[in-house]
Amino acid sequence: MAILSALATEVLIPVAGVIGIAFAVVQWVLVSRVKLSPAAAAAGGSKNDYGDYLIEEEEGLNDHNVVVKCAEIQNAISEGATSFLFTEYQYVGIFMSIFAVVIFLFLGSVEGFSTKSQPCTYSVGKYCKPALFTALFSTASFLLGAITSLVSGFLGMKIATYANARTTLEARKGVGKAFITAFRSGAVMGFLLASSGLVVLYITINVFKLYYGDDWEGLFESITGYGLGGSSMALFGRVGGGIYTKAADVGADLVGKVERNIPEDDPRNPAVIADNVGDNVGDIAGMGSDLFGSYAESSCAALVVASISSFGINHDFTGMCYPLLVSSVGIIVCLITTLFATDFFEIKAVKEIEPALKKQLIISTALMTVGIAIISWLALPAKFTIFNFGTQKEVSNWGLFFCVAIGLWAGLIIGFVTEYYTSNAYSPVQDVADSCRTGAATNVIFGLALGYKSVIIPIFAIAVSIYVSFSIAAMYGIAVAALGMLSTIATGLAIDAYGPISDNAGGIAEMAGMSHRIRERTDALDAAGNTTAAIGKGFAIGSAALVSLALFGAFVSRAGVKVVDVLSPKVFIGLIVGAMLPYWFSAMTMKSVGSAALKMVEEGTGKPDYATCVKISTDASIKEMIPPGALVMLTPLIVGTFFGVETLSGVLAGALVSGVQIAISASNTGGAWDNAKKYIEAGASEHARTLGPKGSDCHKAAVIGDTIGDPLKDTSGPSLNILIKLMAVESLVFAPFFATHGGLLFKYL
Amino acid sequence: MAILSALATEVLIPVAGVIGIAFAVVQWVLVSRVKLSPAAAAAGGSKNDYGDYLIEEEEGLNDHNVVVKCAEIQNAISEGATSFLFTEYQYVGIFMSIFAVVIFLFLGSVEGFSTKSQPCTYSVGKYCKPALFTALFSTASFLLGAITSLVSGFLGMKIATYANARTTLEARKGVGKAFITAFRSGAVMGFLLASSGLVVLYITINVFKLYYGDDWEGLFESITGYGLGGSSMALFGRVGGGIYTKAADVGADLVGKVERNIPEDDPRNPAVIADNVGDNVGDIAGMGSDLFGSYAESSCAALVVASISSFGINHDFTGMCYPLLVSSVGIIVCLITTLFATDFFEIKAVKEIEPALKKQLIISTALMTVGIAIISWLALPAKFTIFNFGTQKEVSNWGLFFCVAIGLWAGLIIGFVTEYYTSNAYSPVQDVADSCRTGAATNVIFGLALGYKSVIIPIFAIAVSIYVSFSIAAMYGIAVAALGMLSTIATGLAIDAYGPISDNAGGIAEMAGMSHRIRERTDALDAAGNTTAAIGKGFAIGSAALVSLALFGAFVSRAGVKVVDVLSPKVFIGLIVGAMLPYWFSAMTMKSVGSAALKMVEEGTGKPDYATCVKISTDASIKEMIPPGALVMLTPLIVGTFFGVETLSGVLAGALVSGVQIAISASNTGGAWDNAKKYIEAGASEHARTLGPKGSDCHKAAVIGDTIGDPLKDTSGPSLNILIKLMAVESLVFAPFFATHGGLLFKYL
Repeated sequence: MAILSALATEVLIPVAGVIGIAFAVVQWVLVSRVKLSPAAAAAGGSKNDYGDYLIEEEEGLNDHNVVVKCAEIQNAISEGATSFLFTEYQYVGIFMSIFAVVIFLFLGSVEGFSTKSQPCTYSVGKYCKPALFTALFSTASFLLGAITSLVSGFLGMKIATYANARTTLEARKGVGKAFITAFRSGAVMGFLLASSGLVVLYITINVFKLYYGDDWEGLFESITGYGLGGSSMALFGRVGGGIYTKAADVGADLVGKVERNIPEDDPRNPAVIADNVGDNVGDIAGMGSDLFGSYAESSCAALVVASISSFGINHDFTGMCYPLLVSSVGIIVCLITTLFATDFFEIKAVKEIEPALKKQLIISTALMTVGIAIISWLALPAKFTIFNFGTQKEVSNWGLFFCVAIGLWAGLIIGFVTEYYTSNAYSPVQDVADSCRTGAATNVIFGLALGYKSVIIPIFAIAVSIYVSFSIAAMYGIAVAALGMLSTIATGLAIDAYGPISDNAGGIAEMAGMSHRIRERTDALDAAGNTTAAIGKGFAIGSAALVSLALFGAFVSRAGVKVVDVLSPKVFIGLIVGAMLPYWFSAMTMKSVGSAALKMVEEGTGKPDYATCVKISTDASIKEMIPPGALVMLTPLIVGTFFGVETLSGVLAGALVSGVQIAISASNTGGAWDNAKKYIEAGASEHARTLGPKGSDCHKAAVIGDTIGDPLKDTSGPSLNILIKLMAVESLVFAPFFATHGGLLFKYL
Repeated sequence: MAILSALATEVLIPVAGVIGIAFAVVQWVLVSRVKLSPAAAAAGGSKNDYGDYLIEEEEGLNDHNVVVKCAEIQNAISEGATSFLFTEYQYVGIFMSIFAVVIFLFLGSVEGFSTKSQPCTYSVGKYCKPALFTALFSTASFLLGAITSLVSGFLGMKIATYANARTTLEARKGVGKAFITAFRSGAVMGFLLASSGLVVLYITINVFKLYYGDDWEGLFESITGYGLGGSSMALFGRVGGGIYTKAADVGADLVGKVERNIPEDDPRNPAVIADNVGDNVGDIAGMGSDLFGSYAESSCAALVVASISSFGINHDFTGMCYPLLVSSVGIIVCLITTLFATDFFEIKAVKEIEPALKKQLIISTALMTVGIAIISWLALPAKFTIFNFGTQKEVSNWGLFFCVAIGLWAGLIIGFVTEYYTSNAYSPVQDVADSCRTGAATNVIFGLALGYKSVIIPIFAIAVSIYVSFSIAAMYGIAVAALGMLSTIATGLAIDAYGPISDNAGGIAEMAGMSHRIRERTDALDAAGNTTAAIGKGFAIGSAALVSLALFGAFVSRAGVKVVDVLSPKVFIGLIVGAMLPYWFSAMTMKSVGSAALKMVEEGTGKPDYATCVKISTDASIKEMIPPGALVMLTPLIVGTFFGVETLSGVLAGALVSGVQIAISASNTGGAWDNAKKYIEAGASEHARTLGPKGSDCHKAAVIGDTIGDPLKDTSGPSLNILIKLMAVESLVFAPFFATHGGLLFKYL
């Protein structure tokens, strides 16, 4: 048995969760010390914790008006975001209620709504709880997952819209202060989300255990509903938020740069508030829900697979909770890592921002490797067995350490490759910027080629992780590798949320009419944020691939499929149709953004009207998120019910291998175009200056690329993670139903 | 046994082939009656077969100068194309020689270069010819396939460059005359290619049979080299030609429209001759090699699978030759179909062109359905068995008819869907044109979304064909379904080659300074050609998907793999890496086009120099075709040798399901952008006129889309067919080696 006792595990997990939440609260308190009310600001440094003199004072910008203006704009953004999210939640709420009923009916029908206990699937000779109650608990955990995801996204948005004007005001004191404000706010979101996800999951398991007792199979089967709930919410958050943010952004770009020849953040541009709102609902709330979903799903996948391993059979609680312990260690590691950015070092110049963020990734990965080693040694027995499609496979604790570690390091590699292809410090983006010399067409050709090329190394990294972790510990290995990649989620999210906050801060500075020097600082924060946003997406996609495969493995085990043979036509047609789904989905989301942006431009030709633009974005995204959402949610149900589990297996595998490529290439192409534009605008090198300045033909060509990239990198690309994951987790939840009643069409033909 | 005797089969196939070749010669003679020498032209209608008056006479354009000018330009294009192809062939020749040695060594090593007969794999108790001789014959058929493909492409290019100026001159007499000239020339290529492919394959089989005698397994195994040769040649033809044509086209567009504000066909544009040469080497020679490759491969796949079925066991020669008989019937059916376009009906107005071409597809499909029914009844026994991964499956002749027919009709559906998404007569292209109102960015977003969406129905059509034909006759069903889709290849190629000929004709009219009315006629021919080119690509991709699957099935059978289980990590990593290969490949080809075009633009800023531009395109395409070519050719060798047949199976399946989507979406997106531009230029409707005219902001945005679409639709998209097919056929040829010596890495780890 493991060194760590069951009691110690019962204590350790909630303690780590509570520490994470407490840390988030502390960060929030520190951010809130930056005062937004004019009285406090006018009183100057004395009341301010930092005590620096405001360097812009001599320019007369530290007057009441600027602070009031900033507060007003922040208010408008916050109100727009809140109102959008509430509207979105209403629609999503209706959907969730209907889907909860569907889950209950489908899963309840597996044993004909019988309330009698049934023989277990894996523990031969034992009796397990009736399917009807598992249906009930699955429905409950589905709703719980959805609500946790919703609350996480909402709180993230709240703190982001609380921090953006504060970052702007801090930028008057220097780039370091502004950086810390933005980063702390990101950390609030990261820790809140990682900790609450862990705590809620932990409590749910313990509560469900009161009913299930010794029936761990049933217990962890019903827990998968938590992952489904989290990801369903994420789907609508990502798609709805993604359409919103990019409709507004593309609209603002077009109105600003094409129609009126004014900057995109100019207050005369009516789409500008909608654009800023969009950053918060799409990149913050959507991204938060997305990564929460991945985290919940990889935990659930690992738990389900473990429940039918020797952990489950021997009722080894500590071993069983290994996935949760890894996440607990992750929270502590990320906490230490955060201090490196906020307390141990200080940023003094613009060029230090990107290295500081990169250091976060490296430090968290290095520390986490040690953390995993320790927890693997403490929590796992030296040898144990894992279920491997019908047979049992022996695994050592060091083997499992290796699985988690390879996922973690594959994530870092994906992060660095993404950085290489999307940061304007390296040649790929500079080449794209250079191709703008001959116009928008070559810019687009080079940008698309860059995105395609950027897929190569991440795919090899994922392939190696899959091969190694599967060889060591079958599907459990892949599930914990995914968890390894996500174990530093708190830091990942902090870095990721930092981007949109800085972007907003820049927008507020522009709208409040602050000086060029302040705008330069916020622009530098924003450029670093673009790259880290791309890195965050790389993580999200890479982990989604591993998570989906783990869920796929769990689904296949649960559905009793022994082999998914590509040579069987049932599987092959699933494979080719599954590979097509990401295209169908992207076609819908891209077109939605385009259409909504067109409406925005039509509005843009009149007098600026912020409210109308916010309304156009809201209406468009709510209306347009339904068809792609339905495509993702209904496909597994239709395929499973009518074509059966073999074809569904093909669809899942096809969607996975095809979707991951489009997702990576779309988000890197978009990121590269955005930073190629910023490269020309910043004019930091000899080469960049020959392409600029703003308004030159080169720059115009770069703006076209940037606008095309918006829906690719923020709507269709990142939504594809969710398509992949959600179809897999949904199949897993409905597996008992499909295995019993599925494949109607082939049965009767 | 079948109704048709072996002797009748031996007669029927070569007779059909000879009729096809004779028909091609007749069409060529008819085209050559249009005289290009000024003396003959000056003598007017009396010497001309048509005897019409030249309607442009009153405009004074029928003078010696115009004819001389046209002849000169044609000469320049023809010389450029010939010189490029010879350069290309030199490099390809070196490659082919090396690869021939590789084939011989790899396959010869299977039994350690032993010259003793070995026990057969399938016919238990019998002895088959030694691997060493099969290696020798495989190498020979590889070279034969390559040479046939090369000659087909070259002759196609010759007739196209022979016909383009003639089409221009005929345009003076009316759109109908010009259409017939262009179409007849396309038919020369179509029939020559389909017939020579059939005849060479037939002769090879009969010659090889002299050695192999009763050993049909060995015979048809060595014949697969023919498919590999054809497709290897096609790879370099498509990639090299594709880079050439688009480097020149993008270069010409950029020079013409961006740098100098002159039309792309203006003689002052130095890239213009290179652009016209490109149409001939890429769209004619490349496309010809590509479809020849598909045709050769699907025949080989069907023959290999059939050789281990009851046809092979019973030595039923007629049944065995069923794939060749289907192609023979196809030639006769296409011959009749062609007469509908050239003799039975006459085109009188511009708007009749597209329907006439569409009718070709419908007529050939309808007639062919009858043809297949007859030949299935005559050539097949009422019941026979087919090898199905270790078991035998009983099939009826009507079942097999149904397999061929479903492939044929799936092709028609794909053709029509392609037409719907790329013709400017329907709303998708009109919507894309409309999105140009707000600039190039929305144009690109809408165009990409259109391409993604256009994948849906073709994939369902392919999936249904696969499911039905596999259910009826296992992998043999899929092979003959592919053959069904390609059975009307002569008509398909005629329509396809018609496009670039018309495009060239327009270019020549512009360069020769002919009147606006003539240019309008050639433009109308060209617009119809764009759509038919997209349809041709749709056929090529759809058939490539089926062919690859059939080859994949043959490979798996030959390599002795019983199951390709997605749940095995060896297969899964193959699947995900395979799905990545089309992206890697596209990144290379897209970037090549971009870089070559940039060089062209740099040249464009000096004084016009045709020769330099032709040289830039030639050098760029020769240099740039090597890395993507190496990627495709080496991947199966490396994966098979080091990772083994299971991983290779995964790679093939992954590349297939992912590549087919990118190929379809890329070629439709490109086609849609091209026709959206033409829609605005032509201004044929109220809506189109609000977007135009040429030179408006809308039109400029449309030109950017068109330029981006060039490499998508003519380089990276259509090359992906070959990537898919070639990797599959190469794996099949090397299957004996991989099965014996492959998987080194897993063996020693």
